[in-house]
Amino acid sequence: MGKGDETRTAVLDQAMRMVSAVGMRGLTIGSLADATGLSKSGLFGHFKSKEQLQLDVLDHATELFVDVVLRPALKVPRGEPRVRELFERKLVWDGLNEGVLPGGCIFTNLAAELDDEPDSPLRDKLVQQERDWLETVATVFAGGVGEGHFAEDADPRQFAFDLHGVMLAQHHATRLMRDPDAERRARNAFESLLRAARPAT
Amino acid sequence: MGKGDETRTAVLDQAMRMVSAVGMRGLTIGSLADATGLSKSGLFGHFKSKEQLQLDVLDHATELFVDVVLRPALKVPRGEPRVRELFERKLVWDGLNEGVLPGGCIFTNLAAELDDEPDSPLRDKLVQQERDWLETVATVFAGGVGEGHFAEDADPRQFAFDLHGVMLAQHHATRLMRDPDAERRARNAFESLLRAARPAT
Repeated sequence: MGKGDETRTAVLDQAMRMVSAVGMRGLTIGSLADATGLSKSGLFGHFKSKEQLQLDVLDHATELFVDVVLRPALKVPRGEPRVRELFERKLVWDGLNEGVLPGGCIFTNLAAELDDEPDSPLRDKLVQQERDWLETVATVFAGGVGEGHFAEDADPRQFAFDLHGVMLAQHHATRLMRDPDAERRARNAFESLLRAARPAT
Repeated sequence: MGKGDETRTAVLDQAMRMVSAVGMRGLTIGSLADATGLSKSGLFGHFKSKEQLQLDVLDHATELFVDVVLRPALKVPRGEPRVRELFERKLVWDGLNEGVLPGGCIFTNLAAELDDEPDSPLRDKLVQQERDWLETVATVFAGGVGEGHFAEDADPRQFAFDLHGVMLAQHHATRLMRDPDAERRARNAFESLLRAARPAT
């Protein structure tokens, strides 16, 4: 990685932290210059425009998500073990916190910020990323149907919707309610989803 | 209702619409004056400060929530019928939309906006309102345990967490993803929760 790439990565890490905490609204070239000690013109050299910077932050977050959640999950055996690993790694992601994502899952936060915005390249990208995530959960779950771990008639997209709800409830319980039981509740909910998905015996 | 009360209610309705769409960040005495055609000093006569206005908007939203969701649910028989009515009325609430809550559930939107804010009377009030809602769901569910509709060992607080997750996933699917299947997915998830809660036969 050259010096320019290193700087770019460091700037995107900082921008991601800022967006996690205060949303895209709080991310400007000026605030990012203050936080990184770089000049505004230096930042424009890397990102061309605020819009491009915002899009690049989303891509940067997705790269991290792939490293933290998806790649480890794809290393464990197909079926229920992989579904479990996906859930465990998503809990790790939601807990990255201070230093990386101080406001918790950046995608969840941006969903709330951008959902009522008019269509834009930024909103479109977030929708595509969320769709990719839900499709991934459905595909991993379908692998469990293929292995006979889950019932033939279990609906992978319904499972993705349900698991997404569990993660959103956990985010709410942790971040807004500061509920010490949040993770335990999420684990209970996850086990119930698996129980309901198993083949009738 | 006197003229002053009518004006106050009309202003709070407008403020609630604005907060639903753009969050507390977008609510200022100035923007509200523009939207209602009242003078800033007239508004200050009603609300004293921006902070008081924000708190009053939350109380106003709760009054509406009680009218739309809680009061109708408490009119149907205790147990599973009341749990079902609570869910149906919450779907109505989430769909109030244009004219009332153009950005969907105001509490869900504010949770995302305020969750990483430092403690404040506004954040505290929202937390208390969300806690009241979760407690209400748990209590209504516990009524179903008492009636024998749900298993003795079913955990009312877990059910409240789970149902909250379903509603959050529905909000996300509707508002960000514009998924036409959002309500169907939420209904499926709700039926699964009830199925899992029923006494073993």
